[in-house]
Amino acid sequence: MKIIAAQPPLYLKLARALEDQIDRGALRPGDRVPSVRGFSLRQGVSISTVLEAYLWLEKRGAIEARPKSGFFVRVPFTRSVPEPRFHTPEPRPQRFSAGDIVAEVLGSAHDPTHVPLGTACPSPDLFPNQKLNRILRGIIRSTPLHSAVYAFAPGAEALRRQIARRSLEYGCSFAPSEIVVTCGAMEALNLGLRSVARPGDVIAVESPTYFGVLEAIQSLGMRAIEIPTHPREGMSLDLLEGAIRKHRIKACVAITNGHNPLGYVLPDEYKKNLAELTARHDIALIEDDIYGDLAFGARRPKVAKAFDRKGNVLLCSSFSKVLAPGFRVGWVHAGRFQVEVERVKFNNTVATASLGQLTLGEYLESGGYDRYLARLRIAFAEQVRMVSHAAAKYFPEGTRITRPDAGYLLWVELPKKVDAVALFRAALDEHISIVPGTIFSSTGRFRNCIRISCGSRWSDAIDRALLTLGRLAESIARRS
Amino acid sequence: MKIIAAQPPLYLKLARALEDQIDRGALRPGDRVPSVRGFSLRQGVSISTVLEAYLWLEKRGAIEARPKSGFFVRVPFTRSVPEPRFHTPEPRPQRFSAGDIVAEVLGSAHDPTHVPLGTACPSPDLFPNQKLNRILRGIIRSTPLHSAVYAFAPGAEALRRQIARRSLEYGCSFAPSEIVVTCGAMEALNLGLRSVARPGDVIAVESPTYFGVLEAIQSLGMRAIEIPTHPREGMSLDLLEGAIRKHRIKACVAITNGHNPLGYVLPDEYKKNLAELTARHDIALIEDDIYGDLAFGARRPKVAKAFDRKGNVLLCSSFSKVLAPGFRVGWVHAGRFQVEVERVKFNNTVATASLGQLTLGEYLESGGYDRYLARLRIAFAEQVRMVSHAAAKYFPEGTRITRPDAGYLLWVELPKKVDAVALFRAALDEHISIVPGTIFSSTGRFRNCIRISCGSRWSDAIDRALLTLGRLAESIARRS
Repeated sequence: MKIIAAQPPLYLKLARALEDQIDRGALRPGDRVPSVRGFSLRQGVSISTVLEAYLWLEKRGAIEARPKSGFFVRVPFTRSVPEPRFHTPEPRPQRFSAGDIVAEVLGSAHDPTHVPLGTACPSPDLFPNQKLNRILRGIIRSTPLHSAVYAFAPGAEALRRQIARRSLEYGCSFAPSEIVVTCGAMEALNLGLRSVARPGDVIAVESPTYFGVLEAIQSLGMRAIEIPTHPREGMSLDLLEGAIRKHRIKACVAITNGHNPLGYVLPDEYKKNLAELTARHDIALIEDDIYGDLAFGARRPKVAKAFDRKGNVLLCSSFSKVLAPGFRVGWVHAGRFQVEVERVKFNNTVATASLGQLTLGEYLESGGYDRYLARLRIAFAEQVRMVSHAAAKYFPEGTRITRPDAGYLLWVELPKKVDAVALFRAALDEHISIVPGTIFSSTGRFRNCIRISCGSRWSDAIDRALLTLGRLAESIARRS
Repeated sequence: MKIIAAQPPLYLKLARALEDQIDRGALRPGDRVPSVRGFSLRQGVSISTVLEAYLWLEKRGAIEARPKSGFFVRVPFTRSVPEPRFHTPEPRPQRFSAGDIVAEVLGSAHDPTHVPLGTACPSPDLFPNQKLNRILRGIIRSTPLHSAVYAFAPGAEALRRQIARRSLEYGCSFAPSEIVVTCGAMEALNLGLRSVARPGDVIAVESPTYFGVLEAIQSLGMRAIEIPTHPREGMSLDLLEGAIRKHRIKACVAITNGHNPLGYVLPDEYKKNLAELTARHDIALIEDDIYGDLAFGARRPKVAKAFDRKGNVLLCSSFSKVLAPGFRVGWVHAGRFQVEVERVKFNNTVATASLGQLTLGEYLESGGYDRYLARLRIAFAEQVRMVSHAAAKYFPEGTRITRPDAGYLLWVELPKKVDAVALFRAALDEHISIVPGTIFSSTGRFRNCIRISCGSRWSDAIDRALLTLGRLAESIARRS
């Protein structure tokens, strides 16, 4: 599988060398970059190669062409576009009410003719499909009765062993018997909620948070209390503790690595504090780590579960974002709630489909996952960067954009006048799918925010779609 | 795949001819069957062949050996052992309380070293695994990206088309777009409950009913009201209507074909009345039809959904009992609740694993399912018959046994003195798994009942296990 070419083309080498100079400050905003002709002569490469390099840098927002004057270094994206704002309204338990818009989003999000900036799905060819298929064929041969038996909870041992083995990477040391395999992390979350809380109970969540979390809480008859969440530093632990003292909170759901939609990875210290805070108040912490393997930093980040001393952390994860969404294989380490989680698992879906479990178990055992992940992370970091720069270029003045530490989701705060639901609908008319910020909260906030998925390979179609989005946003702002 | 030999051995031909004579009344209870030597001479077969035929008939409970007198026709099982009793206590909403015993049953039911009379799983080799694997390999070739994309609700079109096509068989006429694929029928039930009712709501169920139904209702914070259910004629519709008038019932769960645990198939008239009754009172009917394709009669029975005029019936089914439990593929036709069901599906498990859906779709399209089913039904009818006869022979005086019309489950009412939980535990010590009746109700009834799965091929081990169960039951009765 080829994610990035082993030998980059010449123009890319040139472009990266220049980008490096910009990053190091050798070329500063406003500086003129070498003329195309001069650079071509000095480097001994063709003019078209230099032009290609400059166009690439322009697309990334690093330089800009000024008519009749050549190319100049731009004010970097990170300086020109700020991060989204952090608000701290008083948390109050709410019932989720953006349901109709969720239905609208889900109903339209999977249209294959749309430019897919909505659903959090990467381009299918980024996954190691050939290798997975090779393993699959072997399993059909070696386990011909795979479909004839239920893989009852806790699930296929071969997979649980690999999950346990990898848990060292994020600061845990699981035994295979402690893992319960689920139909993706969404089932893990549902089982967690059903195991630790009852209808009517209050669940603390980040704000904004993934709308599926709010929907699951709502559909189980529970209430969410939204804790103000800083776009880089996570949910305010002070406000969380205040809410715990004031309301009878039963559990807290937190996405600690590669937050959806904010993209941050929280530091170890924060995770330790969160684990201790929830343990101290005897509430369950349901931790979602599905993007943890996709952190851009040098080390795989830890999880809050690594600091769990009382067994009150339920760590949920899945292989949907890193290997195979179609297998529907996730898992949960439910700490002291394991017996109850296995029981609800039986009552919810009886068992998880066998083939995916067996295939992923063998894939992880066969080695090469880390090398593959390294390439995948580079690809996503690159895609996030391209989309960020294009958004900075095309979106209205006053736009704010997150700086994700992991995954492939961007959270964009547009000027107040831009109604995100109107933008979502207008974009659909142009065959572009995005997700309006409204559904990431029950509080009515984030009405001018959108989530953009950068899961797909960068392309001209995506560039054009972002240009269109920018124009639509401008026109909505003007109309309002 | 070979389920029954195309050419039965000679002894079996002889035995069946004799059995036929008994069934037709040519040989009556108490009659002496021909002597081994005489029969051997007249039929021109060896003595050992006749002996083999007689032993086979003896095992089936059709004849019995009397010392020094030869073989005699037995009082038929159906006359010697009555069906379970029908009680009609006043229905009251209850919270399910047999949870600890369910945990015990689940924790022990899947031990491969046990004689498997507990879980409702057939012998793996009864399924068409080779053909499914052949199709699987083709799908991996033709759809190499199968694992790289979510099969979002409503699910794979190829499968939904086949489900729609087959719906004519049971009196419906579904469109593919009306089917929502789920992770088995248990997820369909969960989605149904979460779509039509809220926590605290009352759900009418049969009594006894599959413990998974009671557990799901309980774990969603709803309450079950148990409607007395006749072991052959189903839930009393008069008592159901009475309960509806008295309590605010939001939905009714009914297993209309191959009831778990009672095994009955309800007549069309009943199904029509049930559909009309629930429609009249505007409550949702969640119908479970997972054993419908396994009915022993000449025709595939209809479903109550066939009489649904208002869209209030949610028909749930699955391929787990007929083709591939390991695929975890079920479905629901949710009538007017479809939008809500698709939404909860997204919030519960996002999507169903793709490979199983694609494989089953192609399997059903390729033809041969009906021929396969015919053989499977014969195998199950035979297994049910063998277990029934053995139970009639070995279990204590006063035992009552159901006469299943479909599937492979037997419901056995033991004498009052036999505590089923004690029997379940004693059997486990002997490496035999059964399910105690207690967990099929919240009312504390069925304490002397057990469910026996006849899913596994008849064998000496099963014969011995039933003998052991009988002895354990006797000894428990004596001790109490």
